[in-house]
Amino acid sequence: MKKIYLIGIGTGNPEHLTIQAINTFKKVNVFFILEKESEKNEDLVKLRKEILQRYLPDGRYRVMAIKIPERKKGGRELEVYKERVASWRKQKAEIISNLIKQEIADGETGAILIWGDPSLYDGHIEILNYILKEGWADFEFEVIPGITSMQVLTARHKIPLNFIGESIRITTGRRLKEIHPDDVKNSVVLLDNYLTYRNFADSDLHIYWGSYLGTEEEILISGRLNEVLDEIIKTRNEAKKNNGWIMETYILRAGE
Amino acid sequence: MKKIYLIGIGTGNPEHLTIQAINTFKKVNVFFILEKESEKNEDLVKLRKEILQRYLPDGRYRVMAIKIPERKKGGRELEVYKERVASWRKQKAEIISNLIKQEIADGETGAILIWGDPSLYDGHIEILNYILKEGWADFEFEVIPGITSMQVLTARHKIPLNFIGESIRITTGRRLKEIHPDDVKNSVVLLDNYLTYRNFADSDLHIYWGSYLGTEEEILISGRLNEVLDEIIKTRNEAKKNNGWIMETYILRAGE
Repeated sequence: MKKIYLIGIGTGNPEHLTIQAINTFKKVNVFFILEKESEKNEDLVKLRKEILQRYLPDGRYRVMAIKIPERKKGGRELEVYKERVASWRKQKAEIISNLIKQEIADGETGAILIWGDPSLYDGHIEILNYILKEGWADFEFEVIPGITSMQVLTARHKIPLNFIGESIRITTGRRLKEIHPDDVKNSVVLLDNYLTYRNFADSDLHIYWGSYLGTEEEILISGRLNEVLDEIIKTRNEAKKNNGWIMETYILRAGE
Repeated sequence: MKKIYLIGIGTGNPEHLTIQAINTFKKVNVFFILEKESEKNEDLVKLRKEILQRYLPDGRYRVMAIKIPERKKGGRELEVYKERVASWRKQKAEIISNLIKQEIADGETGAILIWGDPSLYDGHIEILNYILKEGWADFEFEVIPGITSMQVLTARHKIPLNFIGESIRITTGRRLKEIHPDDVKNSVVLLDNYLTYRNFADSDLHIYWGSYLGTEEEILISGRLNEVLDEIIKTRNEAKKNNGWIMETYILRAGE
């Protein structure tokens, strides 16, 4: 039998790794690093290789960096977006099932390193389940949880994720657009490349914003949204220009 | 200046600890282990001491186990519950500020070990912010994220937390009672001691249920709620009897 691990590695700080992740590394024969073709952020490939070098100093493993096709852009509408993600995942499933068949010998173990946690807005769990369901390759898999950007955001701002006994919504920029300011209450927003928080500039909401969380480039801004909005936009635009990429994570919260 | 760390230690598996948590341990002079007076689960104190022994074998630290008063029971109603938690937290704030004043010398570092992640349904972040705001003690603090039961649940069931581009609700048993089955969609439920999932027995919802997650006692059950409900209730009742305590985490999900 072949075995695949999906290993959550946190948000870029090598210290986010759990002992479980590191102990799992030691069982792995081949690590797959999947990167979008157009990926400008070579940093992100480098960072994963550095994590492996740090925790597996003896170098007895193979690393394969594989370019994967870019997802079709333009899916601002949720239904279009969902379709495009689903079709992109099928393409990735084909690539991954070929890797499993060709690059992992029977009895060997492969791993895919996942930013954050494999269960949160990632997709590899669904892809592996899909490959198994379709019978494209034969293997077992396990998931190793990792620290998410949401957790680093709250830790660094020193705020709880929840109010006492209250719910939390985790959502995306696309979904947030559809939510009325009065219904936002306490929402964590991930995958927002559209500065959707601008839509709430006239509300009484408070924002806890962060980027490059856990890394040396980390930026944190918080305050009443209408008071800090300009600062956030200016900061993120400059950082994006300097670093070539940006990922934003934030919480919008009423009643602060 | 005195320093306090709130350190997330995961759900009971010592391998859930991050390198950041372990490196933070090394800076700590005194660890506070806070336990409810009536706590039957001596296991949970023991487990934390074992974690310290494992990662700090030289033993150059102090450990103080402190009994804290029990929260007043009976707050099934949300408003009553919130009030009781708030007043309980004030009691804890008094105890913790005394510990900081009396047990940590200037320049020393204290730590509180937190199950899961300090930001998720815990309360110590708010307690420390409250002590600072009230001026009861003078210190700095930092938060170290940890793996939550929610993440271990999805990892072990090999399911994503979210559908593509969709939101997730994290909530409590008390809150869940107020939600109509059609609105549950994709909800993670924590802190449910009331078997609230029974309320949804007539729905089409799917449940992914887990307890003692990450430990050797781990139990996982999943399926259509109306098909697995009896098994879950039977299993949790037996486990509670055997172990003296139970914590349940589950996801209710439509459209599986």
